Amino acid sequence: MTTTVPALSARRAHAPFETVDLQRRALRPDDVRVDIRYAGICHSDIHQVRDEWGEGLFPMTPGHEIVGTVVEVGGNVRDHAVGDTVGVGCFVDSCLECQACREGEEQFCEKGVVQTYAQEDYHGEVTYGGYSRQIVVRDHFAVPIPEGVDLAGVTPLLCAGITTYAPLKRYDVGPGTRVGVIGMGGLGHVAVKIAAALGAEVSVLSRTDAKRKDGLAFGARHYLATEDESVFDDLRCSFDLLLNTVGDGIPMDDFLSTLGRGGVMVNLGAPSDRLEIAAFSVLTMRRSVAGSMVGGLAQTREMLRFCAEHDITATVEVIGADQVDEYYDRVVDGSVRYRAVIDAHTLGEPASGG
Amino acid sequence: MTTTVPALSARRAHAPFETVDLQRRALRPDDVRVDIRYAGICHSDIHQVRDEWGEGLFPMTPGHEIVGTVVEVGGNVRDHAVGDTVGVGCFVDSCLECQACREGEEQFCEKGVVQTYAQEDYHGEVTYGGYSRQIVVRDHFAVPIPEGVDLAGVTPLLCAGITTYAPLKRYDVGPGTRVGVIGMGGLGHVAVKIAAALGAEVSVLSRTDAKRKDGLAFGARHYLATEDESVFDDLRCSFDLLLNTVGDGIPMDDFLSTLGRGGVMVNLGAPSDRLEIAAFSVLTMRRSVAGSMVGGLAQTREMLRFCAEHDITATVEVIGADQVDEYYDRVVDGSVRYRAVIDAHTLGEPASGG
Repeated sequence: MTTTVPALSARRAHAPFETVDLQRRALRPDDVRVDIRYAGICHSDIHQVRDEWGEGLFPMTPGHEIVGTVVEVGGNVRDHAVGDTVGVGCFVDSCLECQACREGEEQFCEKGVVQTYAQEDYHGEVTYGGYSRQIVVRDHFAVPIPEGVDLAGVTPLLCAGITTYAPLKRYDVGPGTRVGVIGMGGLGHVAVKIAAALGAEVSVLSRTDAKRKDGLAFGARHYLATEDESVFDDLRCSFDLLLNTVGDGIPMDDFLSTLGRGGVMVNLGAPSDRLEIAAFSVLTMRRSVAGSMVGGLAQTREMLRFCAEHDITATVEVIGADQVDEYYDRVVDGSVRYRAVIDAHTLGEPASGG
Repeated sequence: MTTTVPALSARRAHAPFETVDLQRRALRPDDVRVDIRYAGICHSDIHQVRDEWGEGLFPMTPGHEIVGTVVEVGGNVRDHAVGDTVGVGCFVDSCLECQACREGEEQFCEKGVVQTYAQEDYHGEVTYGGYSRQIVVRDHFAVPIPEGVDLAGVTPLLCAGITTYAPLKRYDVGPGTRVGVIGMGGLGHVAVKIAAALGAEVSVLSRTDAKRKDGLAFGARHYLATEDESVFDDLRCSFDLLLNTVGDGIPMDDFLSTLGRGGVMVNLGAPSDRLEIAAFSVLTMRRSVAGSMVGGLAQTREMLRFCAEHDITATVEVIGADQVDEYYDRVVDGSVRYRAVIDAHTLGEPASGG
């Protein structure tokens, strides 16, 4: 049967969050119901609540970094059982039949992937995300959380982890690869940890020196403060791969000049402004500017195992549901160290089903 | 000994060409002297004579698509003999020792490749290009022209051929690959021929319908006139690779939307204006915007053999030295079909050495 659970909701764009009663659907045969323990705050939540990517679907309950416990399973579910700890990431349904889905890239489903929140799903219902006490998703889109990991710290991996792991694997990062991570916020600090664990020589390219100590502790070999533009002179052709985790405009040509022959800048952030580059910045050294968007479910499972084996979690601040508005501003001003995670139990108990 | 040969020269930026006496150096041990038969007009010649890439080195004799006959060889030259037909492309020297050179990408030489014209070489002398009756180059940078090919038609392959062949090979184009060629001028029409010979399903994306018949004759399966913007609606996710041969700004996001999952747009033209893209155009379907610049010498030799085997030459208009100014305007207005090649013999005979 449907359940009624507390959730944070923004009534309209820019509205502060209020706690509301949210209905979660009765299980379909392939569904699992998850009692949410933690939900991460991703910068893209803020973009959407603030209508920075175009007009959003309101009221909105964001949240696509979710960890919790399975409390009910549908009749066809074999991979999950009541009591399992699972994660839910950026999407909750796809066709599972098209070429992209079959190749493990559900995020590029030809029918259209169903985002975890603020989207109409295949049944005509609007999705609501992880800033709530429960979520119901199709079993394929819940992934096992390895035993023994810190649950708050693992939560951001469901978006920030897979978003950085996927391009690092796609471009064969390993020992000998020179990786530059542009920006060291929620995405960037996870990128540093994973790239270092893959054996790469990692450099942090942060605007200021403020995070130097942390960057080196996370595994970076080098840390460069780019507010002094002269650093770019010394960095010509220094990297094989740049991960751009910064949402706002950066001096693209300066950063591209740091790529060696055949080097690639992968853009992970989603700025509302446009990327502007001189044609010669890519012609020279046949560089590329690429994009990457999250990653598929099989790779998400692989990433979670990799991170568990290498003792990687996000560095988080656990906050209460009443602090989310405040932390939205702190995410934007860059003062969170390094990802805010909502303790979903501070929302209160689910009402009994009804 | 040095020779004195007739050449076209632009005294300063934008100046019309005049015929001047050019000194070609006495041979060093690794040099070959080439009597030039044909020289192609590349759009980048025009960019440089018109100072559209920054301040050029004047007086300037452009030309980096060169075919001719070896008339003298230095003492160390083993690969070329007097009487051989050879080609010279975009550069005439590199260190041949750095990693890029050793890997066959002399164009990205770490010491700096020496362009065929308008650059100071390693000996402090300025280079002068193919719009002349002779050229002297280091033997490594002269490549054999296969027997029996049309010499005027093969000439543009020294730049347009390798510039399009290199990315087609880098991105593994073959049967089943869906390739879109943006623009069908000097570069584009060669791209269509080579991509089709590689077995790809080639589409021409030209502004108007004017070149449809030619495009299909060159081997394209489809021809789309993009001045009707609605064509982009039908082309979503249709291509694996786009070769952008257009120098001026194009609607990048519209073109990027035609790339499927993991698709790449390779920019070959060198516009002076900047490339501007929405971040989501690459995030979606994890597309890339790449650059490519000519190709190395080993691959140039390979390309010439491939084109000879597949009976590919550029479609050219052979012109006299007195028509070059006129043809510069025709290249810019897009009315040349499809590459102008100067008959270097119309410059007159070389003076005897002196």
